Amino acid sequence: MTRVGVIDWLTGIADRGRELLDFPVSPGGDRERTLLDLCHDLASRSGEATGTALAREVAAQWHALPAEERPAFFRALLDAFSVDRNALDAAIARWRDAPDEAALTALHQAAEPARQDLLRRINMAPDGTRAVVDMRLALLGLLKSHPDLAPLDEDLRHLLSSWFNRGFLELRRIDWRTSASVLEKLIRYEAVHEIDGWDDLRRRLAADRRCFAFFHPALRDEPLIFVEIALVKGLAASVQALLEPGEDPSAPKTADTAIFYSISNCQEGLRGISLGNFLIKQVVEELRREMPTLKTFSTLSPIPGFVGWLRSRRKGPEAEKAKALLAVLDQPGWQEDAALAESIREPMTRLCAAYLTHGRRGKAPLDPTARFHLGNGATLERVNWMGDTSAKGLRQSGGMMVNYLYRLSDIERNHEALMAEGKVAASRAVLSLAGKA
Amino acid sequence: MTRVGVIDWLTGIADRGRELLDFPVSPGGDRERTLLDLCHDLASRSGEATGTALAREVAAQWHALPAEERPAFFRALLDAFSVDRNALDAAIARWRDAPDEAALTALHQAAEPARQDLLRRINMAPDGTRAVVDMRLALLGLLKSHPDLAPLDEDLRHLLSSWFNRGFLELRRIDWRTSASVLEKLIRYEAVHEIDGWDDLRRRLAADRRCFAFFHPALRDEPLIFVEIALVKGLAASVQALLEPGEDPSAPKTADTAIFYSISNCQEGLRGISLGNFLIKQVVEELRREMPTLKTFSTLSPIPGFVGWLRSRRKGPEAEKAKALLAVLDQPGWQEDAALAESIREPMTRLCAAYLTHGRRGKAPLDPTARFHLGNGATLERVNWMGDTSAKGLRQSGGMMVNYLYRLSDIERNHEALMAEGKVAASRAVLSLAGKA
Amino acid sequence: MTRVGVIDWLTGIADRGRELLDFPVSPGGDRERTLLDLCHDLASRSGEATGTALAREVAAQWHALPAEERPAFFRALLDAFSVDRNALDAAIARWRDAPDEAALTALHQAAEPARQDLLRRINMAPDGTRAVVDMRLALLGLLKSHPDLAPLDEDLRHLLSSWFNRGFLELRRIDWRTSASVLEKLIRYEAVHEIDGWDDLRRRLAADRRCFAFFHPALRDEPLIFVEIALVKGLAASVQALLEPGEDPSAPKTADTAIFYSISNCQEGLRGISLGNFLIKQVVEELRREMPTLKTFSTLSPIPGFVGWLRSRRKGPEAEKAKALLAVLDQPGWQEDAALAESIREPMTRLCAAYLTHGRRGKAPLDPTARFHLGNGATLERVNWMGDTSAKGLRQSGGMMVNYLYRLSDIERNHEALMAEGKVAASRAVLSLAGKA
Amino acid sequence: MTRVGVIDWLTGIADRGRELLDFPVSPGGDRERTLLDLCHDLASRSGEATGTALAREVAAQWHALPAEERPAFFRALLDAFSVDRNALDAAIARWRDAPDEAALTALHQAAEPARQDLLRRINMAPDGTRAVVDMRLALLGLLKSHPDLAPLDEDLRHLLSSWFNRGFLELRRIDWRTSASVLEKLIRYEAVHEIDGWDDLRRRLAADRRCFAFFHPALRDEPLIFVEIALVKGLAASVQALLEPGEDPSAPKTADTAIFYSISNCQEGLRGISLGNFLIKQVVEELRREMPTLKTFSTLSPIPGFVGWLRSRRKGPEAEKAKALLAVLDQPGWQEDAALAESIREPMTRLCAAYLTHGRRGKAPLDPTARFHLGNGATLERVNWMGDTSAKGLRQSGGMMVNYLYRLSDIERNHEALMAEGKVAASRAVLSLAGKA
Repeated sequence: MTRVGVIDWLTGIADRGRELLDFPVSPGGDRERTLLDLCHDLASRSGEATGTALAREVAAQWHALPAEERPAFFRALLDAFSVDRNALDAAIARWRDAPDEAALTALHQAAEPARQDLLRRINMAPDGTRAVVDMRLALLGLLKSHPDLAPLDEDLRHLLSSWFNRGFLELRRIDWRTSASVLEKLIRYEAVHEIDGWDDLRRRLAADRRCFAFFHPALRDEPLIFVEIALVKGLAASVQALLEPGEDPSAPKTADTAIFYSISNCQEGLRGISLGNFLIKQVVEELRREMPTLKTFSTLSPIPGFVGWLRSRRKGPEAEKAKALLAVLDQPGWQEDAALAESIREPMTRLCAAYLTHGRRGKAPLDPTARFHLGNGATLERVNWMGDTSAKGLRQSGGMMVNYLYRLSDIERNHEALMAEGKVAASRAVLSLAGKA
Repeated sequence: MTRVGVIDWLTGIADRGRELLDFPVSPGGDRERTLLDLCHDLASRSGEATGTALAREVAAQWHALPAEERPAFFRALLDAFSVDRNALDAAIARWRDAPDEAALTALHQAAEPARQDLLRRINMAPDGTRAVVDMRLALLGLLKSHPDLAPLDEDLRHLLSSWFNRGFLELRRIDWRTSASVLEKLIRYEAVHEIDGWDDLRRRLAADRRCFAFFHPALRDEPLIFVEIALVKGLAASVQALLEPGEDPSAPKTADTAIFYSISNCQEGLRGISLGNFLIKQVVEELRREMPTLKTFSTLSPIPGFVGWLRSRRKGPEAEKAKALLAVLDQPGWQEDAALAESIREPMTRLCAAYLTHGRRGKAPLDPTARFHLGNGATLERVNWMGDTSAKGLRQSGGMMVNYLYRLSDIERNHEALMAEGKVAASRAVLSLAGKA
Repeated sequence: MTRVGVIDWLTGIADRGRELLDFPVSPGGDRERTLLDLCHDLASRSGEATGTALAREVAAQWHALPAEERPAFFRALLDAFSVDRNALDAAIARWRDAPDEAALTALHQAAEPARQDLLRRINMAPDGTRAVVDMRLALLGLLKSHPDLAPLDEDLRHLLSSWFNRGFLELRRIDWRTSASVLEKLIRYEAVHEIDGWDDLRRRLAADRRCFAFFHPALRDEPLIFVEIALVKGLAASVQALLEPGEDPSAPKTADTAIFYSISNCQEGLRGISLGNFLIKQVVEELRREMPTLKTFSTLSPIPGFVGWLRSRRKGPEAEKAKALLAVLDQPGWQEDAALAESIREPMTRLCAAYLTHGRRGKAPLDPTARFHLGNGATLERVNWMGDTSAKGLRQSGGMMVNYLYRLSDIERNHEALMAEGKVAASRAVLSLAGKA
Repeated sequence: MTRVGVIDWLTGIADRGRELLDFPVSPGGDRERTLLDLCHDLASRSGEATGTALAREVAAQWHALPAEERPAFFRALLDAFSVDRNALDAAIARWRDAPDEAALTALHQAAEPARQDLLRRINMAPDGTRAVVDMRLALLGLLKSHPDLAPLDEDLRHLLSSWFNRGFLELRRIDWRTSASVLEKLIRYEAVHEIDGWDDLRRRLAADRRCFAFFHPALRDEPLIFVEIALVKGLAASVQALLEPGEDPSAPKTADTAIFYSISNCQEGLRGISLGNFLIKQVVEELRREMPTLKTFSTLSPIPGFVGWLRSRRKGPEAEKAKALLAVLDQPGWQEDAALAESIREPMTRLCAAYLTHGRRGKAPLDPTARFHLGNGATLERVNWMGDTSAKGLRQSGGMMVNYLYRLSDIERNHEALMAEGKVAASRAVLSLAGKA
């Protein structure tokens, strides 16, 4: 018989909780115990014996905590569940004395705040993972007004990043046979092109569409991130065309192109944990397996920073040009005036190409969507004039959309070139447009 | 710090991966890349772009690595994937300068060896968790001869402990309808009372028995730990009686006692990660829910250290007594000679009770099984003479077994008394026996 | 007589398929074969060899058959797939000669039309059951204009009744986690109290509601019949109150009454096949198992025939009374005029009680809903004034609803009394009301 | 609201039970009711009201009925649940008067014994299908000694044949991940090449093997029929070679031939209901889908009637030849004497080919296995000397095996030729061998 649980205890590792005994531990009686008391108990050695019962109570109390009391609770977590400073100083001294890997291990352990272990114990509760993700969600909303809580966010991000490792995620196809409790979340979380109720959703799950999401086993029925795909012939240029009714039931057999036209995160509490990159690449593999006729995998994406960037150029060397374009863009309904629209088509597409290929923040592309897809190793393939004539599309992207191509053979090279040299991978057509801007 | 994907990068957090560029990165060409080269690639920024492809290759190469090359590989992991010493020194300086939580976060991050992130990336592969658990299994086998690898084991234990957090485990009932590929693992891993083939297994899964196991979503069909239970009337005293054929189909309706007669770990690679404590307590809850007639939850356990301890007493104040008892125990077949057996019954049970209640290593019980159950908060209820007359039972436990009672209301108090005062929770009967030893 | 496959043939039983050889069998070549040709092939011995391929083609052709060609196709099935008259005459002669069970078996087989076997062979196709149910649906729509097709309907009903035997049905709970493709069918098929979109549906699946449906393994995602239930305290009197928003999450623990407020058939092609009776009774068992606090199981039902019956009484002994009541009921908005409504309350509830307890067609209750629930053995418990103030409720039931109580201990006796003596089981209150009508 | 259940009753169809009222119906009191009483109740109108409760009791009583009382029970079913003779005579008269389809329907219904409806009602019980299949199993064992029960068997066969229609069966792959409760049934029911325990079973489920079974939704965990397949290169000639250990993990990618080396029925109670033909053909489709490299689908089959046929020829024109061969076959161990074996190889294989191609019972092949596969439309491809050197193989087949080829394009033609002209489809090699016999 292997006696797990005991070994930790014997070796003293599981006893790290002992240092926490300095914190006031509630007597465990009948009285209403506060959330923080419960946290102390859970972190202490009693937490070992009660199994998940204490963790369950902590999670329940957390869910019941009034929003206005959260900052104080987070503040207390930060202060009361830090490190044993003497132990840390000793570990530092040991490392300085003999900086070997054993000393490093000891230092790393001594430098881990006790709240990380507390969070791991909260996670043991049924639905504990939900509680931890919720805590981070709440904390993120407070960071601006309480910047001192940032170290706690770092603890949460560190843990969640390890727990939501891609190896633990499950890719699932979403279709009309999926549970309504999952589908309603797509409606709620779609962030790029709003889903207008169940009929619109159904159209996006028809035979010529695909939808995939990542799930985590501990968050049942909660999609983490999902992507919507249209199966079409040739590179799609307009998102409105994709969202129209009119299913093509033959698409799975005849389509040559998969257009990723929307990718949305569902869990704000997982902000900063990379999921989209993995999702796109695995979905490309899934689609290739299912439909060998597919040859091209591309996005149809907004350029969300373009018009803002254009506005910022009203002061500067090309101010007049920017002002002239903005004068048109600021006329309501300009896009329906064919002549007017045509008059700015060339300068707009050229500037857009230039913005995407040359705009930089450090080595990284300036446009956030470009940063994501180019950073993933995609290629900027085409600028589509009048690709998104929705209010949002006109306001942010000047009505344009672009295609980022995911060519698996180029991904590593593109990524490397961007990271090392800040070089954007773009088609000749885009580069030529950009050159004329 | 995990830095998968681009989103982090977008937000401007510095790319820790860069420091790894000092290690030689293979050109990514066609040539046979070694496992270590692949690890460097995976840890570097290229690893971000290729998604899980590189991780998959690392896992595959690991599985193909000849056993004799493992020590060198582990050694290299330890040396080549350590920390940036300058960064760590700077973080230490900052902490000493102003020991606030932000400085602590920076110090903790700087002290994390790069190999932890590498292992997280390997985990991204399909079956990557399997590979990491396998690595630890292999490493554990090497620690004795390569004690310098201990820090790497600490990294693995730290990660696996976080990943196999109880909140991520799934409790499943095992019965005859379970997949053969799971059942064969019970036969393989049963460590207390060997399962003698499929017929024996089937008896242990009959209507008057229960079996539960923990599973992890990333290790399909792999039980982590399982427990076998007999539904009986009254406290069982003999394990041979429990293993006999002769199912009682009415037990689920008439039994008042659940006897946990075997608990076995299946994954040596998870050594030191606490599972058994949680398993027992959740199974108690499950059984109570299913069968409200159950009133008593108890183990029937060996005393694996008893005879060894007795032998150690051949030198010492009570040497003659110990020698006399061992003289009987060392006669083959003594247990079948009723008079002979009876002659040692009293002194044996008294000594056993004394060994279990007074034997100590520090505050912890000396006997490993006692350490586990008493540490979980159970109560030592009864000593059973002739409880296990198998060769192993006679050799280790002098043929005796004990019952540890899991009374949920006492668990926290028992655990606390043991941890704080080293006080063993035992029934009056056992204490009285011990007093007469 | 089914004669699929070869094993029968081996055992020497004569091949009844042979007689079908008189029908023209297509040569099996490339030419476009008509549906009827395919049916002949499928019924013939070729059908045995091709496995399900021919059946699949028949099903596909059926689905493609233009609606206007269906009567001719059904007519042909009736004529071309009848019996071998000589064989039937011989079987009759044998029976008359010696009316033993063997002769009866032979007669029964000889009297089975060949189309029954044909339908069984169509059922072999993937989705063949769907095709057979569809055929009946189409046929039912034609019976009025083509009464000569009734014998074919009888064949279909006979087969479907055997195939949709309660022993083959699966009871499933429907909730918000159920597949959208199932849920949309609830919206479509709800026949009693229309479901107004997904939000309304969601309310009916909340924690204080239950929904169950029967499914058949061969019709995936197709509910056959479903029932909607409200968990409440005390007997519900108004359906509008039940349909309002405002979930009571504690209901599963506190409710003492389950109100079956809607039961709807989904498959018109299964008309005349008894499902509702079984559904209600099994759901009562399920609910009792899940929530032991439930004491009362009752419907809240319309009286769909009441106003029609009242109108029919405008001629007859009580004509004036009926006319007076109808004069009120025919005033739009009468139910909102409290005094006006109150003025007819007493006579209306009395007449309703009388209609339900005394109204007869033969021994059976006159009102169709009463026929169903009283025939199931339920007890007429209470008449609820203003129980359903929807347009339909006012029009059919004069705004009233009734509760039929399912008391398991009374069901057999109630049923027997109704069947043998035409005696309606009703509460004293209802009987007293009826006595005053 | 559709009111199913009611409609039958209204139209009088469901009231057919009334005629049964002549049989004594138990008062439903507390006394121990006999199985036959229960059957009468269930068939009567009370059966309608009690839902499945009565059916459940009938099924339970049936399972408890001592074997020696079964003949009397069956006899009573036959006698007491027959037809209403007056009604049948009236239906016959009507048919003779005007033999239209409506009269036929009435005649067919009047000729249906009441026991068929009784059996349908028994089927409504939980596990009712199991009870009906069990009844047939028991009945089949009595038919020889009680030939008068044959009509009851015909009723059961008729119902089961309709219920176990291929459209209701589910094909499932069986592998090592399958439930042990299913796998143990393979060990029990394998009828061709005995499975020698779990290790042998595991080998038959390895990566280079396939196993498929039909299941019926009402018989959970009960395979109805299963087939075992080896994935190999080229046509397999020896079954011993296939059963040896030594898995070829690459087979799914490299094999060009699927050898169906065993097909076994599991449910004797379904005797005479065609399943094997459908199973083989659907499995061929499944394998082609999964492994496009497979080109040949063939059996490796015994010739179970061959040696018996040879013995029968000891009297007749070729008596000397037969006697000479049998003289060798009757020497124990002849097959290990290479020279002796070689001496009979040619005449044996020639005679075997002749037996299979020319041996007839009517138009059907004489050999039962040949009857099955040739009747399915397969082609007799090859005779394999020393194909099965097991004791059973030597005794029945003279140690030979044959390959029947399932070439989908030929199946319909082969079947037709056999049925119409009694022509066996065989390869040139086999025909040439047969010609020399």
